Amino acid sequence: AEVQKKITPWRLGIQEQEAELQLVPPQRAARLGKLHGALLVVASLIDKPTNLGLCRTCEIFGASALVLDSLRHVNDKHFQSLSVSSELWLPLLEVKPVELTDFLQVKKSEGYCIVGVEQTANSHSLQYYQFPEKTLLLLNEREGIPANLLQMLDVCVEIPQQGVIRSLNVHVSAALLIWEYTR
Amino acid sequence: AEVQKKITPWRLGIQEQEAELQLVPPQRAARLGKLHGALLVVASLIDKPTNLGLCRTCEIFGASALVLDSLRHVNDKHFQSLSVSSELWLPLLEVKPVELTDFLQVKKSEGYCIVGVEQTANSHSLQYYQFPEKTLLLLNEREGIPANLLQMLDVCVEIPQQGVIRSLNVHVSAALLIWEYTR
Repeated sequence: AEVQKKITPWRLGIQEQEAELQLVPPQRAARLGKLHGALLVVASLIDKPTNLGLCRTCEIFGASALVLDSLRHVNDKHFQSLSVSSELWLPLLEVKPVELTDFLQVKKSEGYCIVGVEQTANSHSLQYYQFPEKTLLLLNEREGIPANLLQMLDVCVEIPQQGVIRSLNVHVSAALLIWEYTR
Repeated sequence: AEVQKKITPWRLGIQEQEAELQLVPPQRAARLGKLHGALLVVASLIDKPTNLGLCRTCEIFGASALVLDSLRHVNDKHFQSLSVSSELWLPLLEVKPVELTDFLQVKKSEGYCIVGVEQTANSHSLQYYQFPEKTLLLLNEREGIPANLLQMLDVCVEIPQQGVIRSLNVHVSAALLIWEYTR
Protein backbone atom coordinates (compact mmCIF):
# COMPACT_ATOMS: atom_id res chain seq x y z
CA ALA A 1 0.00 0.00 0.00
CA GLU A 2 1.11 3.53 -0.64
CA VAL A 3 1.97 5.67 2.28
CA GLN A 4 1.26 9.34 1.96
CA LYS A 5 4.42 11.37 2.35
CA LYS A 6 4.36 14.25 4.73
CA ILE A 7 5.92 17.26 3.03
CA THR A 8 7.55 19.95 5.09
CA PRO A 9 7.72 22.75 2.52
CA TRP A 10 10.80 24.48 3.89
CA ARG A 11 12.84 21.32 3.50
CA LEU A 12 12.63 21.91 -0.24
CA GLY A 13 14.83 24.45 -2.03
CA ILE A 14 13.55 27.99 -2.59
CA GLN A 15 12.66 27.36 -6.24
CA GLU A 16 10.61 24.29 -5.33
CA GLN A 17 8.91 26.23 -2.55
CA GLU A 18 7.92 28.95 -4.99
CA ALA A 19 6.29 26.41 -7.27
CA GLU A 20 4.66 24.75 -4.31
CA LEU A 21 3.25 27.90 -2.82
CA GLN A 22 2.41 29.39 -6.20
CA LEU A 23 2.93 32.85 -4.79
CA VAL A 24 5.39 34.09 -7.37
CA PRO A 25 5.22 33.54 -11.11
CA PRO A 26 9.00 33.20 -11.58
CA GLN A 27 9.03 33.69 -15.35
CA ARG A 28 7.24 36.99 -14.98
CA ALA A 29 9.67 38.13 -12.29
CA ALA A 30 12.65 37.12 -14.45
CA ARG A 31 11.18 39.01 -17.39
CA LEU A 32 11.11 42.11 -15.23
CA GLY A 33 14.80 41.66 -14.48
CA LYS A 34 14.22 40.73 -10.85
CA LEU A 35 17.16 38.89 -9.36
CA HIS A 36 17.16 36.74 -6.30
CA GLY A 37 20.10 36.99 -3.95
CA ALA A 38 20.77 34.44 -1.27
CA LEU A 39 19.45 36.45 1.65
CA LEU A 40 16.78 34.66 3.67
CA VAL A 41 14.90 36.92 6.08
CA VAL A 42 13.27 35.06 8.97
CA ALA A 43 10.47 37.00 10.66
CA SER A 44 8.78 34.08 12.45
CA LEU A 45 9.44 35.70 15.82
CA ILE A 46 7.77 38.96 14.78
CA ASP A 47 4.13 39.20 15.74
CA LYS A 48 3.23 42.87 15.29
CA PRO A 49 1.51 43.09 11.89
CA THR A 50 2.86 46.63 11.37
CA ASN A 51 6.38 45.25 11.31
CA LEU A 52 5.52 42.88 8.50
CA GLY A 53 5.65 45.90 6.15
CA LEU A 54 9.09 44.28 6.02
CA CYS A 55 7.72 42.24 3.11
CA ARG A 56 7.92 45.34 0.90
CA THR A 57 11.49 46.09 1.99
CA CYS A 58 12.61 42.48 1.36
CA GLU A 59 11.09 42.49 -2.11
CA ILE A 60 12.65 45.82 -3.04
CA PHE A 61 16.14 44.76 -2.02
CA GLY A 62 15.88 41.33 -3.64
CA ALA A 63 15.86 39.02 -0.62
CA SER A 64 15.40 35.41 -1.76
CA ALA A 65 12.49 34.78 0.62
CA LEU A 66 10.71 36.02 3.72
CA VAL A 67 9.84 33.49 6.41
CA LEU A 68 6.71 34.14 8.47
CA ASP A 69 5.17 32.33 11.42
CA SER A 70 2.04 31.88 9.33
CA LEU A 71 1.08 32.42 5.71
CA ARG A 72 -2.34 33.51 6.89
CA HIS A 73 -0.89 37.03 7.29
CA VAL A 74 -1.10 37.31 3.50
CA ASN A 75 -4.90 37.40 3.69
CA ASP A 76 -4.87 40.16 6.29
CA LYS A 77 -6.04 43.54 4.96
CA HIS A 78 -3.48 45.43 7.08
CA PHE A 79 -0.65 43.22 5.83
CA GLN A 80 -1.78 43.77 2.25
CA SER A 81 -1.91 47.54 2.61
CA LEU A 82 1.61 47.60 4.06
CA SER A 83 3.11 45.18 1.59
CA VAL A 84 1.66 47.02 -1.46
CA SER A 85 1.51 43.75 -3.45
CA SER A 86 5.16 42.84 -2.76
CA GLU A 87 3.82 39.52 -1.38
CA LEU A 88 3.06 38.56 -4.99
CA TRP A 89 6.70 38.91 -5.97
CA LEU A 90 8.57 37.67 -2.95
CA PRO A 91 8.62 33.97 -2.04
CA LEU A 92 7.04 33.57 1.39
CA LEU A 93 7.59 30.55 3.61
CA GLU A 94 5.81 29.44 6.74
CA VAL A 95 7.95 28.33 9.67
CA LYS A 96 6.30 28.35 13.07
CA PRO A 97 8.40 29.50 16.03
CA VAL A 98 8.55 25.91 17.40
CA GLU A 99 9.98 24.72 14.08
CA LEU A 100 12.74 27.34 14.00
CA THR A 101 15.45 25.16 15.58
CA ASP A 102 14.97 22.52 12.87
CA PHE A 103 14.75 25.13 10.15
CA LEU A 104 17.97 26.87 11.19
CA GLN A 105 19.73 23.49 11.40
CA VAL A 106 18.68 22.61 7.84
CA LYS A 107 19.80 26.01 6.55
CA LYS A 108 23.13 25.73 8.37
CA SER A 109 23.73 22.40 6.64
CA GLU A 110 22.97 24.13 3.34
CA GLY A 111 25.78 26.57 4.05
CA TYR A 112 23.83 29.53 5.35
CA CYS A 113 25.44 31.83 7.91
CA ILE A 114 22.86 32.48 10.66
CA VAL A 115 22.94 36.17 11.61
CA GLY A 116 21.06 37.79 14.49
CA VAL A 117 20.77 41.43 15.53
CA GLU A 118 21.91 41.42 19.14
CA GLN A 119 24.23 43.40 21.34
CA THR A 120 26.69 40.92 22.83
CA ALA A 121 30.36 41.09 23.80
CA ASN A 122 31.25 39.50 20.44
CA SER A 123 28.88 41.41 18.19
CA HIS A 124 30.18 42.82 14.92
CA SER A 125 29.35 46.44 14.15
CA LEU A 126 27.06 46.75 11.13
CA GLN A 127 29.36 49.52 9.91
CA TYR A 128 32.19 47.10 9.19
CA TYR A 129 30.52 43.71 8.85
CA GLN A 130 30.76 41.92 5.49
CA PHE A 131 27.80 39.58 5.00
CA PRO A 132 28.50 36.18 3.42
CA GLU A 133 26.46 35.56 0.26
CA LYS A 134 24.35 32.86 1.92
CA THR A 135 22.98 34.81 4.86
CA LEU A 136 19.97 33.94 6.99
CA LEU A 137 18.83 36.94 9.00
CA LEU A 138 16.94 35.96 12.17
CA LEU A 139 14.84 38.88 13.40
CA ASN A 140 13.26 39.40 16.79
CA GLU A 141 11.08 41.89 18.62
CA ARG A 142 12.38 43.77 21.62
CA GLU A 143 12.65 40.93 24.15
CA GLY A 144 15.55 39.41 22.21
CA ILE A 145 16.28 36.07 20.55
CA PRO A 146 15.34 33.08 22.79
CA ALA A 147 18.35 31.30 24.32
CA ASN A 148 17.89 28.05 22.35
CA LEU A 149 18.08 29.96 19.07
CA LEU A 150 20.75 32.41 20.24
CA GLN A 151 23.22 29.54 20.56
CA MET A 152 22.59 28.60 16.93
CA LEU A 153 23.68 32.00 15.58
CA ASP A 154 26.96 32.11 13.68
CA VAL A 155 27.25 35.89 13.98
CA CYS A 156 25.68 38.69 16.02
CA VAL A 157 25.57 42.08 14.36
CA GLU A 158 24.84 45.29 16.24
CA ILE A 159 23.78 48.67 14.92
CA PRO A 160 25.82 51.48 16.50
CA GLN A 161 23.39 53.85 18.20
CA GLN A 162 23.97 57.13 19.94
CA GLY A 163 20.58 58.04 21.35
CA VAL A 164 19.06 57.64 24.79
CA ILE A 165 16.40 55.22 23.49
CA ARG A 166 18.04 51.84 23.14
CA SER A 167 16.45 49.85 20.39
CA LEU A 168 15.32 50.55 16.87
CA ASN A 169 12.04 49.25 15.55
CA VAL A 170 12.58 45.75 14.13
CA HIS A 171 11.51 46.72 10.60
CA VAL A 172 14.04 49.55 10.62
CA SER A 173 16.85 47.34 12.02
CA ALA A 174 16.07 44.71 9.41
CA ALA A 175 16.01 47.30 6.63
CA LEU A 176 19.47 48.55 7.64
CA LEU A 177 20.92 45.02 7.59
CA ILE A 178 19.25 44.16 4.29
CA TRP A 179 20.57 47.43 2.82
CA GLU A 180 24.09 46.68 4.04
CA TYR A 181 23.83 43.13 2.64
CA THR A 182 23.00 44.47 -0.84
CA ARG A 183 25.38 47.43 -0.61
CA ALA B 1 3.16 101.52 23.93
CA GLU B 2 4.67 98.08 23.75
CA VAL B 3 3.92 95.98 20.76
CA GLN B 4 3.78 92.26 21.25
CA LYS B 5 6.37 90.49 19.11
CA LYS B 6 5.24 87.57 17.07
CA ILE B 7 7.72 84.74 17.52
CA THR B 8 8.13 82.14 14.83
CA PRO B 9 9.93 79.42 16.79
CA TRP B 10 11.85 77.88 13.89
CA ARG B 11 13.52 81.21 13.16
CA LEU B 12 15.49 80.64 16.34
CA GLY B 13 18.48 78.27 16.52
CA ILE B 14 17.99 74.67 17.64
CA GLN B 15 19.27 75.30 21.15
CA GLU B 16 16.88 78.19 21.63
CA GLN B 17 14.05 76.11 20.28
CA GLU B 18 14.77 73.37 22.76
CA ALA B 19 14.54 75.81 25.63
CA GLU B 20 11.41 77.31 24.15
CA LEU B 21 9.62 74.05 23.63
CA GLN B 22 10.96 72.55 26.85
CA LEU B 23 10.80 69.12 25.31
CA VAL B 24 14.36 68.09 26.05
CA PRO B 25 16.28 68.68 29.26
CA PRO B 26 19.64 69.29 27.54
CA GLN B 27 21.81 68.84 30.62
CA ARG B 28 20.36 65.41 31.22
CA ALA B 29 20.91 64.44 27.60
CA ALA B 30 24.53 65.67 27.75
CA ARG B 31 25.09 63.71 30.96
CA LEU B 32 24.01 60.59 29.08
CA GLY B 33 26.60 61.31 26.41
CA LYS B 34 24.01 62.16 23.79
CA LEU B 35 25.47 64.20 20.96
CA HIS B 36 23.62 66.29 18.47
CA GLY B 37 24.73 66.20 14.86
CA ALA B 38 23.61 68.75 12.35
CA LEU B 39 21.03 66.60 10.61
CA LEU B 40 17.58 68.16 10.47
CA VAL B 41 14.84 65.73 9.47
CA VAL B 42 11.76 67.41 8.01
CA ALA B 43 8.62 65.25 8.12
CA SER B 44 6.03 68.01 7.65
CA LEU B 45 4.80 66.37 4.43
CA ILE B 46 4.21 63.03 6.17
CA ASP B 47 0.70 62.51 7.38
CA LYS B 48 0.45 58.80 8.18
CA PRO B 49 0.94 58.52 11.95
CA THR B 50 2.60 55.09 11.56
CA ASN B 51 5.44 56.72 9.67
CA LEU B 52 6.12 59.09 12.55
CA GLY B 53 7.77 56.14 14.36
CA LEU B 54 10.56 58.00 12.58
CA CYS B 55 10.90 59.98 15.80
CA ARG B 56 12.52 56.96 17.47
CA THR B 57 14.93 56.43 14.56
CA CYS B 58 15.94 60.12 14.55
CA GLU B 59 16.63 60.07 18.26
CA ILE B 60 18.68 56.87 18.11
CA PHE B 61 20.91 58.16 15.33
CA GLY B 62 21.36 61.60 16.89
CA ALA B 63 19.49 63.83 14.44
CA SER B 64 19.50 67.41 15.72
CA ALA B 65 15.73 67.80 15.39
CA LEU B 66 12.62 66.39 13.78
CA VAL B 67 10.24 68.80 12.08
CA LEU B 68 6.53 67.89 12.09
CA ASP B 69 3.49 69.53 10.53
CA SER B 70 2.03 69.81 14.02
CA LEU B 71 3.30 69.28 17.55
CA ARG B 72 -0.13 67.92 18.45
CA HIS B 73 1.10 64.51 17.24
CA VAL B 74 3.05 64.29 20.50
CA ASN B 75 -0.20 63.94 22.43
CA ASP B 76 -1.42 61.13 20.22
CA LYS B 77 -1.42 57.69 21.90
CA HIS B 78 -0.37 55.94 18.68
CA PHE B 79 2.52 58.38 18.18
CA GLN B 80 3.62 57.82 21.77
CA SER B 81 3.57 54.05 21.47
CA LEU B 82 5.68 54.19 18.30
CA SER B 83 8.13 56.76 19.57
CA VAL B 84 8.76 54.88 22.87
CA SER B 85 9.51 58.18 24.68
CA SER B 86 12.08 59.33 22.09
CA GLU B 87 10.00 62.51 21.76
CA LEU B 88 11.30 63.49 25.22
CA TRP B 89 14.88 63.39 23.99
CA LEU B 90 14.66 64.72 20.47
CA PRO B 91 13.95 68.39 19.77
CA LEU B 92 10.71 68.62 17.80
CA LEU B 93 9.72 71.64 15.73
CA GLU B 94 6.43 72.55 14.14
CA VAL B 95 6.49 73.75 10.54
CA LYS B 96 3.23 73.55 8.64
CA PRO B 97 3.39 72.48 4.98
CA VAL B 98 2.51 76.04 3.84
CA GLU B 99 5.47 77.40 5.83
CA LEU B 100 7.98 74.98 4.29
CA THR B 101 9.18 77.31 1.52
CA ASP B 102 10.11 79.96 4.10
CA PHE B 103 11.63 77.38 6.42
CA LEU B 104 13.84 75.86 3.73
CA GLN B 105 14.93 79.35 2.65
CA VAL B 106 16.00 80.22 6.20
CA LYS B 107 17.88 76.93 6.57
CA LYS B 108 19.59 77.42 3.21
CA SER B 109 20.82 80.82 4.39
CA GLU B 110 22.16 79.10 7.52
CA GLY B 111 24.26 76.85 5.31
CA TYR B 112 22.10 73.72 5.25
CA CYS B 113 22.18 71.49 2.18
CA ILE B 114 18.58 70.61 1.32
CA VAL B 115 18.36 66.91 0.41
CA GLY B 116 15.31 65.12 -0.97
CA VAL B 117 14.74 61.45 -1.75
CA GLU B 118 13.69 61.44 -5.39
CA GLN B 119 14.54 59.59 -8.56
CA THR B 120 15.57 62.21 -11.11
CA ALA B 121 18.07 62.29 -13.96
CA ASN B 122 20.57 64.00 -11.63
CA SER B 123 19.99 61.97 -8.47
CA HIS B 124 22.98 60.72 -6.51
CA SER B 125 22.97 57.07 -5.49
CA LEU B 126 22.79 56.67 -1.72
CA GLN B 127 25.56 54.09 -2.03
CA TYR B 128 28.14 56.72 -2.95
CA TYR B 129 26.70 60.00 -1.69
CA GLN B 130 28.64 61.86 1.02
CA PHE B 131 26.31 64.00 3.13
CA PRO B 132 27.52 67.45 4.13
CA GLU B 133 27.54 68.00 7.89
CA LYS B 134 24.69 70.51 7.73
CA THR B 135 22.05 68.41 6.02
CA LEU B 136 18.32 69.03 5.95
CA LEU B 137 16.46 65.93 4.85
CA LEU B 138 13.07 66.71 3.28
CA LEU B 139 10.84 63.63 3.36
CA ASN B 140 7.70 62.92 1.42
CA GLU B 141 5.03 60.26 1.06
CA ARG B 142 4.55 58.41 -2.20
CA GLU B 143 3.18 61.20 -4.38
CA GLY B 144 6.57 62.97 -4.35
CA ILE B 145 7.86 66.38 -3.31
CA PRO B 146 5.63 69.24 -4.56
CA ALA B 147 7.15 71.20 -7.49
CA ASN B 148 7.64 74.46 -5.53
CA LEU B 149 9.75 72.61 -2.94
CA LEU B 150 11.47 70.33 -5.45
CA GLN B 151 13.14 73.37 -7.03
CA MET B 152 14.58 74.33 -3.64
CA LEU B 153 16.47 71.05 -3.21
CA ASP B 154 20.26 71.21 -3.44
CA VAL B 155 20.58 67.46 -3.94
CA CYS B 156 18.35 64.51 -4.84
CA VAL B 157 19.41 61.15 -3.47
CA GLU B 158 17.98 57.86 -4.69
CA ILE B 159 18.09 54.45 -3.09
CA PRO B 160 19.10 51.74 -5.60
CA GLN B 161 16.31 49.17 -5.69
CA GLN B 162 16.05 45.91 -7.54
CA GLY B 163 12.51 44.73 -6.84
CA VAL B 164 9.32 44.95 -8.84
CA ILE B 165 7.68 47.20 -6.24
CA ARG B 166 9.02 50.69 -6.76
CA SER B 167 9.07 52.64 -3.56
CA LEU B 168 10.14 51.94 -0.03
CA ASN B 169 8.06 53.03 2.93
CA VAL B 170 9.06 56.60 3.87
CA HIS B 171 10.20 55.63 7.39
CA VAL B 172 12.48 52.98 5.90
CA SER B 173 13.88 55.35 3.23
CA ALA B 174 14.49 57.98 5.88
CA ALA B 175 16.19 55.45 8.17
CA LEU B 176 18.58 54.41 5.37
CA LEU B 177 19.53 58.04 4.68
CA ILE B 178 19.93 58.85 8.37
CA TRP B 179 22.08 55.71 8.81
CA GLU B 180 24.26 56.69 5.85
CA TYR B 181 24.57 60.23 7.23
CA THR B 182 25.93 58.91 10.55
CA ARG B 183 27.97 56.11 8.96
